[in-house]
Amino acid sequence: MRFHRVLLLVLATCFGASARAADVDLIVYGDYLLSMVPGEAVLEDAAIAIRGDSIVAVGARTDIDAEYSAPRSIPGADRVILPGLVNGHTHTSMTLFRGMVDDLDLMTWLQQYVFPMEGRFVTPEFVRTGSELACWEMIRGGTTTFVDMYFYPDEIAGVVQRCGLRAVIGAPHIDYPSPGFEGWDDSFAAARDFVGRWQGKDPRITPAFAPHAPYTVSPEHLQDTVAAARKAGAPITMHLAEAPAESAYVSEHFQTTPIKHVKGLGMFETPLIGAHMIQLDAEDIALVAAGPAPVGAVHNPTSNMKLGAGISPVPAMLAAGINVGLGTDGAASNNDLDLWEEIRLAALLHKVASGDPTALPAPEALAMATRTGAAAIGLGEYIGQLKPGMQADLIQVDLGKTRHQPRYDIVSHLVYVLDSTDVQTTVVAGQVLMRDRQVQTIDEAALRKAVAKAADGIRAALAAPAEG
Amino acid sequence: MRFHRVLLLVLATCFGASARAADVDLIVYGDYLLSMVPGEAVLEDAAIAIRGDSIVAVGARTDIDAEYSAPRSIPGADRVILPGLVNGHTHTSMTLFRGMVDDLDLMTWLQQYVFPMEGRFVTPEFVRTGSELACWEMIRGGTTTFVDMYFYPDEIAGVVQRCGLRAVIGAPHIDYPSPGFEGWDDSFAAARDFVGRWQGKDPRITPAFAPHAPYTVSPEHLQDTVAAARKAGAPITMHLAEAPAESAYVSEHFQTTPIKHVKGLGMFETPLIGAHMIQLDAEDIALVAAGPAPVGAVHNPTSNMKLGAGISPVPAMLAAGINVGLGTDGAASNNDLDLWEEIRLAALLHKVASGDPTALPAPEALAMATRTGAAAIGLGEYIGQLKPGMQADLIQVDLGKTRHQPRYDIVSHLVYVLDSTDVQTTVVAGQVLMRDRQVQTIDEAALRKAVAKAADGIRAALAAPAEG
Ligand SMILES: [Zn+2]
Ligand SMILES: [Zn+2]
Repeated sequence: MRFHRVLLLVLATCFGASARAADVDLIVYGDYLLSMVPGEAVLEDAAIAIRGDSIVAVGARTDIDAEYSAPRSIPGADRVILPGLVNGHTHTSMTLFRGMVDDLDLMTWLQQYVFPMEGRFVTPEFVRTGSELACWEMIRGGTTTFVDMYFYPDEIAGVVQRCGLRAVIGAPHIDYPSPGFEGWDDSFAAARDFVGRWQGKDPRITPAFAPHAPYTVSPEHLQDTVAAARKAGAPITMHLAEAPAESAYVSEHFQTTPIKHVKGLGMFETPLIGAHMIQLDAEDIALVAAGPAPVGAVHNPTSNMKLGAGISPVPAMLAAGINVGLGTDGAASNNDLDLWEEIRLAALLHKVASGDPTALPAPEALAMATRTGAAAIGLGEYIGQLKPGMQADLIQVDLGKTRHQPRYDIVSHLVYVLDSTDVQTTVVAGQVLMRDRQVQTIDEAALRKAVAKAADGIRAALAAPAEG
Repeated sequence: MRFHRVLLLVLATCFGASARAADVDLIVYGDYLLSMVPGEAVLEDAAIAIRGDSIVAVGARTDIDAEYSAPRSIPGADRVILPGLVNGHTHTSMTLFRGMVDDLDLMTWLQQYVFPMEGRFVTPEFVRTGSELACWEMIRGGTTTFVDMYFYPDEIAGVVQRCGLRAVIGAPHIDYPSPGFEGWDDSFAAARDFVGRWQGKDPRITPAFAPHAPYTVSPEHLQDTVAAARKAGAPITMHLAEAPAESAYVSEHFQTTPIKHVKGLGMFETPLIGAHMIQLDAEDIALVAAGPAPVGAVHNPTSNMKLGAGISPVPAMLAAGINVGLGTDGAASNNDLDLWEEIRLAALLHKVASGDPTALPAPEALAMATRTGAAAIGLGEYIGQLKPGMQADLIQVDLGKTRHQPRYDIVSHLVYVLDSTDVQTTVVAGQVLMRDRQVQTIDEAALRKAVAKAADGIRAALAAPAEG
């Protein structure tokens, strides 16, 4: 898949060089542009030229207008252009469980609600509907790339292809029975099969291995996962160092910390996306930073707070050079997929956790959802910054509303004031997925019908849980 | 003022009894209604009948339609009716400093930015414009009552009268120079004058004394404040037990905690609204609960997190029977006046702080912004619940959007999913301040012009801070 992408990039560049410089496919304007390229300030009165799936030029509106012309353009009054957001950890289909139950002890929540409901309701159709609802919400909120981990990943990949988002799709495997599988052997075989079929198939889809967690997958099975991932050249994504109960389990069974446990199994020798990463001491942080493969951490502040899981040592991980991204986790523990809330919450949480109002300043929090988040999930060469040669994954947000006034600092407003409803335009790989808040690639009425149908069954089961 | 309100209520009741039952002024419908009356569940297919400034009846749509008719009504498809939100602590005019600077050490922020900028820019005109911008934002976000504390309170009262919101307006007094005043004597005299002039003048305005904080007002002056407040029958609102630095100051100068310090000065013998209330031990909590006067606590999660001030012991205060409300604080440390974010953040913060996902469940968090919040600021008899005889302060929120789907539990959605942009209707004292997201009482274009003018000066000063 990496080869595939590089090839596409080379072709695009060659094509670009031989074509007249004036011809691009799309120009997006913005009163402000934030490239998220390190050291680059907010550009005023800017534009970005896009050909095919890639960025050709980023610059002043006057310069872009002088050098390029395009059959389509998007106006930029009061709008800020920035890279599309990266949701580094979610379970998209769980949108259908949004608000099903809240505020319960973790084990009650999982064992009395989530697991039984999943066992009863999760089918390919459920995943298709739930994932499409999630994609709708992400397109509307300015998320352009997500990392998923849920059952029936082929269904998720199909939704992603149709709606145009970019995704790392983890095929789940676990030592216990799960929807569609009896246990490890068949779930791991299906994951290998999924990764093999989707490698290099669609430049927007990166298939991945998704072992559930250190307490639900044996050491031998994690080693098998590492071997399979290395062989396939595919990343691994898993829940890691999330809850105190996980640390207790690993300590009891393996006499170590979750991080040292998986490090000992070779998991840092192949690209890894670790979701949550809360229970880390200084030694653990140094081990993650040392790799040698890139190990990204995905911070999920809403989910961690809602489940009382703890506060991830994000500033220390960033200081150690670890790429830390942001995620929403599933809608059952959030209860939405609004990455702006995660950006703001990350900026706030680490200030109060440290008692230091200078901790995790706004630009760093925003980077976690863009540049640093893209690097955390292994796509830092392609997305997360706006510069020539990168994929054209970008959004426009409106900062012209009365509640945005006055404006002294664009980044401050993006982090501390913006709502997801302020996103106007969502572009992935040069394709406009939303324009003036109208999603272009999903039939909203049909989606709502499917959601209502799926929810009816869940609602009935909630009303009579004894039957479950 | 209390007398005045009771009188109005009696008159309204008598008038109601002698009029034909059928005649009310306004009927508001809702697919759902959440009265926030203890023990009352969500009512489906509901309506509320309003005469003058008061609620006449709350019930099933069919019953209300059979018993009442009104010249005006507001439809309720996909909408939830609930009490308007109560913002228990803010500094409205500071909206003009929104995003001016962030992520600084508290003393740098205050001494290099906030205080010099206030000294230079805060005029009656500034307060009028900033307060109107805040009221615009609150009306749009479903806040119907706020507690303010800022300079030139007559200007704030004027804005409140024009825009139709309800407010407790604290006139600030402090031992140091402040905009318009040289120090204690003139600021305290002006506060007494303000309270005297506004007592009983407008049923929507409660004037209050607002000594700044225990570290900026001497013990003698706090005692003078208590005497003046008791004499006037007006509440006191002040910053209390906010930051570790305050505790250190009080410990050094008075060898006690902020709570014991002000308790010793008689401040719990007259109604008090304490903003922040973070640095409290178990003994402090018991003292606050013991009163004997009602002492409300206002929790400001965003501000407390952003300034790294600490985590208020909210669950313990609620368990002790203290009325705990929610506030946004000023927009300079938030950076908006969106109370929905404070509701969600309160629900999340106390779960992670305690490691207990059952802490501060959604209904309790919502109560902090309605029923409990109204009680915390001394208005629990008039607002915060929807029942006959209470003031008609209510909102309609739209839960019909695709990102709200599916819906299993209305309260869960209100706390964990809702955005301020979902508020459709805002009614205060029977007056419709916003209808279908159109604010009825503020000229948006004129407001924006005034904001832009005020911001220009601040922007210029920020660009050349040395001149300040
Ligand atoms: Zn997860
Ligand atoms: Zn304050």
